[in-house]
Amino acid sequence: MKNVITMLFQNFETLDVFGPVEILGRLKDHFNLRFISQTGGVINSTQNVPVVTEPLSVLSGSGHVLLIPGGLGVVDLLRDEQYINDLKSLAMKAEYILTVCTGSILFSKTGLLKGKNATANKRLFSWAIQESPEVQWIKKARWVKDGNIYTSSGVSAGMDMTFGFIADLLGHQVAKQSSIEIEYDWKEDPGWDLFADLYR
Amino acid sequence: MKNVITMLFQNFETLDVFGPVEILGRLKDHFNLRFISQTGGVINSTQNVPVVTEPLSVLSGSGHVLLIPGGLGVVDLLRDEQYINDLKSLAMKAEYILTVCTGSILFSKTGLLKGKNATANKRLFSWAIQESPEVQWIKKARWVKDGNIYTSSGVSAGMDMTFGFIADLLGHQVAKQSSIEIEYDWKEDPGWDLFADLYR
Repeated sequence: MKNVITMLFQNFETLDVFGPVEILGRLKDHFNLRFISQTGGVINSTQNVPVVTEPLSVLSGSGHVLLIPGGLGVVDLLRDEQYINDLKSLAMKAEYILTVCTGSILFSKTGLLKGKNATANKRLFSWAIQESPEVQWIKKARWVKDGNIYTSSGVSAGMDMTFGFIADLLGHQVAKQSSIEIEYDWKEDPGWDLFADLYR
Repeated sequence: MKNVITMLFQNFETLDVFGPVEILGRLKDHFNLRFISQTGGVINSTQNVPVVTEPLSVLSGSGHVLLIPGGLGVVDLLRDEQYINDLKSLAMKAEYILTVCTGSILFSKTGLLKGKNATANKRLFSWAIQESPEVQWIKKARWVKDGNIYTSSGVSAGMDMTFGFIADLLGHQVAKQSSIEIEYDWKEDPGWDLFADLYR
C-alpha cells in the first residue's frame, strides 16, 4: 500500500488533481490518498472547489507517491522559497513523483528536474523553458517518464500519465481495465499529442 | 450568469463531478458553481476527496443547471424517498439537468425521465433498465440529450457531455476552444461509444 500525497494550494486546477485522483483512488488495495497543503484547512481550486486538507506538519516517513498539480496558483509559488523547499524535501523522500500541467514548472524550481526529460502544458510551454532552461523539455509528448519522475502535458493529460504510471507499476492489464471501468479512451502512447503543434 | 448546483452525497464518484466542474468552472463569465448536499458539511467521494458543501436549505430560486453525479452512494439513495423528492424539486426548477454515470439511474427515480431518451454507465446498464424500465435507455451513446436533460455514460463520459452542453448553449467554437485549453480529445459525436459492446 502506497501513500499518495497530493499537494494542494489556492487556485490549483481542478482536473489536474481529480483526474489522477479518480484513477489512483479506485485502486484501493494499492493506494491511500491524502490531501495536504502547507498549513492545512480548506483550499479552493480555480474552479471554486473547496477541499479539506491536512497540514504538511502531519507528514512523516518516505516512499510515497507525490502528486503535484498546476494551476493559476503556480505563478506566485514559483517565487516562494519556503514552498519550493518544502516541495523539494517531500520529493526527495518520494518513491515516485507525478506532475501535471504547470505543476511541472512548479516542480522544476526544486532543481530536481535538472538535465532530466520532462513535459508541461503546451500553451505555456515557452514559459516552462524560460523558467527552467536546464530541464530537457520535450514538447511533443502526452507525458514523459524519466526515472521515478512522471511529468504530463496540460490538465487532462494527467489522466493518461496516471494510467501509464499504473501500467509501469501494476501491469498494462490493470491500467487498461481501470480505464475501461471509467469509460476513458486512454491514450496509451506517451508520444501521442494533438496539441503540441497548435502553439509556436 | 447561470448557477450550477452540484448535488453531492457520501461516496459520489470523483470524476463524475470534477470532470464537468473543470469544464464549467473555467467559463467564469457564464457559470457560478455551488456544491450542495442535503445537510451541508464535508462530503467524501469514494476516492476519499473531502469537499465542503452548503446545505440544501440555502438554495432558493430557479433557472439553475443541476449536475447529478453517480457513484457507490447511489445504491442507498435510490430507496431514499426524501432524497428523491428533494432532487425532483430541484430538477423541476432547473433550466438544464446534467447527469453522469449512475447519476442517470438516481435521477430516473424522480420520474422525470419517464418516456425520455437517456443513457448511463455501460457496465451497469442492465441495472438502469431494471430500476427504471419506463425510460427509453439508449445503450450505444456517449451522451444523450432529450429536451433540457443531458445524461451521460460512465464517469469520464461526463466531460464529453459537458462540452456538448456548452456547444449547444454557447456555440461549438467555445466548446472546442475550451477542450483544447485543457488538452482534452473531446468526443464531439454523442454516438461515439467504445464501451457499449463490452458488456452483454
